[in-house]
Amino acid sequence: MARYKLILAYDGTHFQGFQRQGKTRTVQLELETALRKLGWQGNTLLSAGRTDTGVHASGQVAAADLDWVHGTEALTYALNMNLPDDVAVIRAEEAGADFHPRFDAVERGYRYRIYQAKMRDPLRERFAWRLWPEVSVECLNQCAKQLLGTHDFAAFGNPPKAGGSTLRHVYSAEWSAHEDELSFEVHGNAFLYHMVRRMVNAQVMVGQSRLSLTDFIQSVQNAEPLPPGLAPAQGLVLLEVRYASNRQEAVRLMKTLL
Amino acid sequence: MARYKLILAYDGTHFQGFQRQGKTRTVQLELETALRKLGWQGNTLLSAGRTDTGVHASGQVAAADLDWVHGTEALTYALNMNLPDDVAVIRAEEAGADFHPRFDAVERGYRYRIYQAKMRDPLRERFAWRLWPEVSVECLNQCAKQLLGTHDFAAFGNPPKAGGSTLRHVYSAEWSAHEDELSFEVHGNAFLYHMVRRMVNAQVMVGQSRLSLTDFIQSVQNAEPLPPGLAPAQGLVLLEVRYASNRQEAVRLMKTLL
Repeated sequence: MARYKLILAYDGTHFQGFQRQGKTRTVQLELETALRKLGWQGNTLLSAGRTDTGVHASGQVAAADLDWVHGTEALTYALNMNLPDDVAVIRAEEAGADFHPRFDAVERGYRYRIYQAKMRDPLRERFAWRLWPEVSVECLNQCAKQLLGTHDFAAFGNPPKAGGSTLRHVYSAEWSAHEDELSFEVHGNAFLYHMVRRMVNAQVMVGQSRLSLTDFIQSVQNAEPLPPGLAPAQGLVLLEVRYASNRQEAVRLMKTLL
Repeated sequence: MARYKLILAYDGTHFQGFQRQGKTRTVQLELETALRKLGWQGNTLLSAGRTDTGVHASGQVAAADLDWVHGTEALTYALNMNLPDDVAVIRAEEAGADFHPRFDAVERGYRYRIYQAKMRDPLRERFAWRLWPEVSVECLNQCAKQLLGTHDFAAFGNPPKAGGSTLRHVYSAEWSAHEDELSFEVHGNAFLYHMVRRMVNAQVMVGQSRLSLTDFIQSVQNAEPLPPGLAPAQGLVLLEVRYASNRQEAVRLMKTLL
């Protein structure tokens, strides 16, 4: 028996998010079903965190204990044979017996994709948010740089546990523009629920002059409440989760940051 | 009554191609249904050409005669309101009464997208062909440059009418590489059925040493038959159709080329 770390990609369009909720179609349910076919006897696999309904991933991380003697590449193939088209294991690795994809994670990265067009584009609607009129990337980046560092992000989302800390550390946050598209990439130690989608929505509101830069800064610096609103789920992708070499290192890193 | 040129985008995944075939779900059927709701009384709209089942478009062109007094932007919105999510009118323009999207076209452009990965990626499977092992872009471009100019492309596909000419002129054909992706963009005066997908498949075969460059060149230069095989539909997008300023100009251009 060994613990395997599974790096997952999924098209979130037809999933009710990652986390299992009874028999609802979730990524976790599909992956657990595939694992059981390979002899997995656990109750609940471990994961780096849930993603909302409609959110995609190219680097979600899960872990499960499994008796498997055929190597990690064969494990990847075997799981993918048993998974539906919209989810796949990109890579499997042997992990330490106490590896935990959530508690050992020291960094998560997300990307949010926007396309700016008057009319909807059926080739992009599934993976991007259509915005019109256009927003200036310079203005968005004026907002983005405010997000860097450690802040109380209470205005941007809820902690996983009620009453939990809303302090988070953002390592990088930047918008880039290519043709008619805008892309926001953000890396942080961890994220509150809805935090990236609320960040995107608030920055776009500043770009559209529906929120002042001053108010945006107040919400980052002093956790002043933001107007309601979430950027749509389909523009968001969980890109990656990074790990410390061991639990002690992870705990130490987290303490340094916050 | 005026003739309107409609530039269309669609996600071909759930269409049985462009061309109407009874009540099968095709792009043409959906567009004709939407046009009828705006008072269109025609039998068959005109189009620049059909696309295969599963092939996408970001610049297909159709035309229809319609009584419409609200301008082209309102026409675009009204059609999109009546179209399903996987097809949209990007732009509508007033065209001359004798404009024909197929006969007046002087150039078509296609793009074929490949991603090179050991495992399938649910975020790209819908719009790209997964290839493994990797193929060198230099090798693919050695093939692509052979395609330039006027050739009898009989080895690459069938003409729209049985017994029709298989001479076509390719203006540009080039592969580019970005991260783990390869993209083939080809522009020509017109294309035979399956021509781009057979071009892609044959070039990939050369890249994988399953077909010699010499045999590939023979099939382009002397219409020598190719081994069977089509690149999968989902990697292909009809990018654009270009027009001469008038029918005479179009006919003249075609005569010069072939």
